[in-house]
Amino acid sequence: MSGSRTAPADVGHIACIGAGVIGGGWVAHFLARGYRVTAWDPAPDASEKLHRLVDLAWPALTELGLAEGADRNNLTVAETLENAVADADFVQESAPEDLELKRDLLARIDAATPVDVVISSSTSGFTMTEMQERCTTPQRLVVGHPFNPPYLIPLVEVVGGEGTEESAVRWASEFFEVAGKSVITMDREVPGFIANRLQEAIWREALHMVANGEATVEQIDTSITEGPGLRWPLFGPCLTFHLAGGEGGMAHMLDHFGPSLKAPWTRLEAPELTGELRDRMVSGCEQAADGRDNAELVAQRDSAVIAVMRAMQQLKEAG
Amino acid sequence: MSGSRTAPADVGHIACIGAGVIGGGWVAHFLARGYRVTAWDPAPDASEKLHRLVDLAWPALTELGLAEGADRNNLTVAETLENAVADADFVQESAPEDLELKRDLLARIDAATPVDVVISSSTSGFTMTEMQERCTTPQRLVVGHPFNPPYLIPLVEVVGGEGTEESAVRWASEFFEVAGKSVITMDREVPGFIANRLQEAIWREALHMVANGEATVEQIDTSITEGPGLRWPLFGPCLTFHLAGGEGGMAHMLDHFGPSLKAPWTRLEAPELTGELRDRMVSGCEQAADGRDNAELVAQRDSAVIAVMRAMQQLKEAG
Repeated sequence: MSGSRTAPADVGHIACIGAGVIGGGWVAHFLARGYRVTAWDPAPDASEKLHRLVDLAWPALTELGLAEGADRNNLTVAETLENAVADADFVQESAPEDLELKRDLLARIDAATPVDVVISSSTSGFTMTEMQERCTTPQRLVVGHPFNPPYLIPLVEVVGGEGTEESAVRWASEFFEVAGKSVITMDREVPGFIANRLQEAIWREALHMVANGEATVEQIDTSITEGPGLRWPLFGPCLTFHLAGGEGGMAHMLDHFGPSLKAPWTRLEAPELTGELRDRMVSGCEQAADGRDNAELVAQRDSAVIAVMRAMQQLKEAG
Repeated sequence: MSGSRTAPADVGHIACIGAGVIGGGWVAHFLARGYRVTAWDPAPDASEKLHRLVDLAWPALTELGLAEGADRNNLTVAETLENAVADADFVQESAPEDLELKRDLLARIDAATPVDVVISSSTSGFTMTEMQERCTTPQRLVVGHPFNPPYLIPLVEVVGGEGTEESAVRWASEFFEVAGKSVITMDREVPGFIANRLQEAIWREALHMVANGEATVEQIDTSITEGPGLRWPLFGPCLTFHLAGGEGGMAHMLDHFGPSLKAPWTRLEAPELTGELRDRMVSGCEQAADGRDNAELVAQRDSAVIAVMRAMQQLKEAG
């Protein structure tokens, strides 16, 4: 079946189901990359909403550089879901986060979409195994989880469900790469995937602090924007701590700060820091450092932090 | 007593105790801001380590712009702790995270430092109440928690212990502002303060994922650097979700995604989303938005994300 699939690089026409912030963001992204997009949403003002979202995103997309042939007029808003998907090379679903709704909607999309076309869901946290159970051809359904706004933030997490063929997961990952995204292909389903689990951990801790009067919304946001948020565009949490370990890297960091994993620094209980976990963290960081020693990593991080701070300063002065 | 304290703007000479990554980072920061610094660390190679750390930081600090009179030669490495603090207008302690060690060290610093001088600890997570118990003049001891690297990341969290005078907390906050930092003054002690609790929640979730084989170190770091990490330099987690709520803002976000607080998206249990918590989040975000509507916030976020992505791209091309 996957033999008759349009090659990822040959996709020309995309169906986007859902006209919320995420659905509209996908529409803007695909239009800016030169695709024809047919969208559908049950809301009576779907067309108006979508055009407003695209218009809001377009200056940023123009600034970043539009693909050849990219045109806002390549957007059609269909009257029915069936019309939207009938002729698509790829379908991206971005309905509200409601499992029953998604199960029904994906079944409808599945029934109306040519059987060799991959269907991807923007779900923030449901697994495809949960969502695909009412589909007759579940093998081509994947999660393609973007970040807000999908027209700017590169990350898409791709993962299949139990009923998904590996070829569909591979196809979707390749397609998203062609469409300009940074793809993480997950081998197994985890609720919330990767980035949302990390982000959700921050978010829940923040809610606890506000609920307990330990910090205000403003203090929480400032603690990130003036603190670790300035390091994260270049190095993620692991490589950041690899650097915090100084010349001893992650190994020193875990040996030195390991005991603080027992400290009540968050409501989240830490895992046991077994020798195996320690070694995985250390070797993962060594791989990520890719031969760069502490001095090189420090110099790169410093350049990045300075560039980010300058950019933020300029925005503040301009605003 | 606080009447005889040097005014925050008149501080000229700072003692830095500890020559690790954080202690050395403080030394570099204070030198770059034009202060005279006397440092001490029990390690036999303390002087060599400190000079290496300062040299590593200096290009970035020069790039950012040194204060008038800033000079690497304004660093003296003292032979004894007592000599280091005897003549200081302010003391910053950055010893290893070991509670017993810090209790003893702070008591020694306290005994040797003129009584009207504020002493600040870089501790990542201990409370000052725990640490100051062996001091005879605990009223001038505060936490001044920086982020790595202290010479670049602006954030300092300031909080006192039960034995600390409010005037010392105020003095420290003012001094750190004068010294070029972004200060969050906390009203009460929470283990890990604010940013570390948030960061630690991410870190623990990441360790769980690696321990369970759910994600690799590389996937975790990529999920941040290509995802939410690009948004956080401008808007923290709260304002980010305010935007994710579209025109309905945080109120819509909580009503729509509220149920996902029950989902197993992280090992961290969420607090009950009471009406009071909801209202605090909503009004905090409205205050932070400060009259900017969704379109304005989106435009600012988009400009920031583009600026950050461009800066990272340039760094990658240069490297």
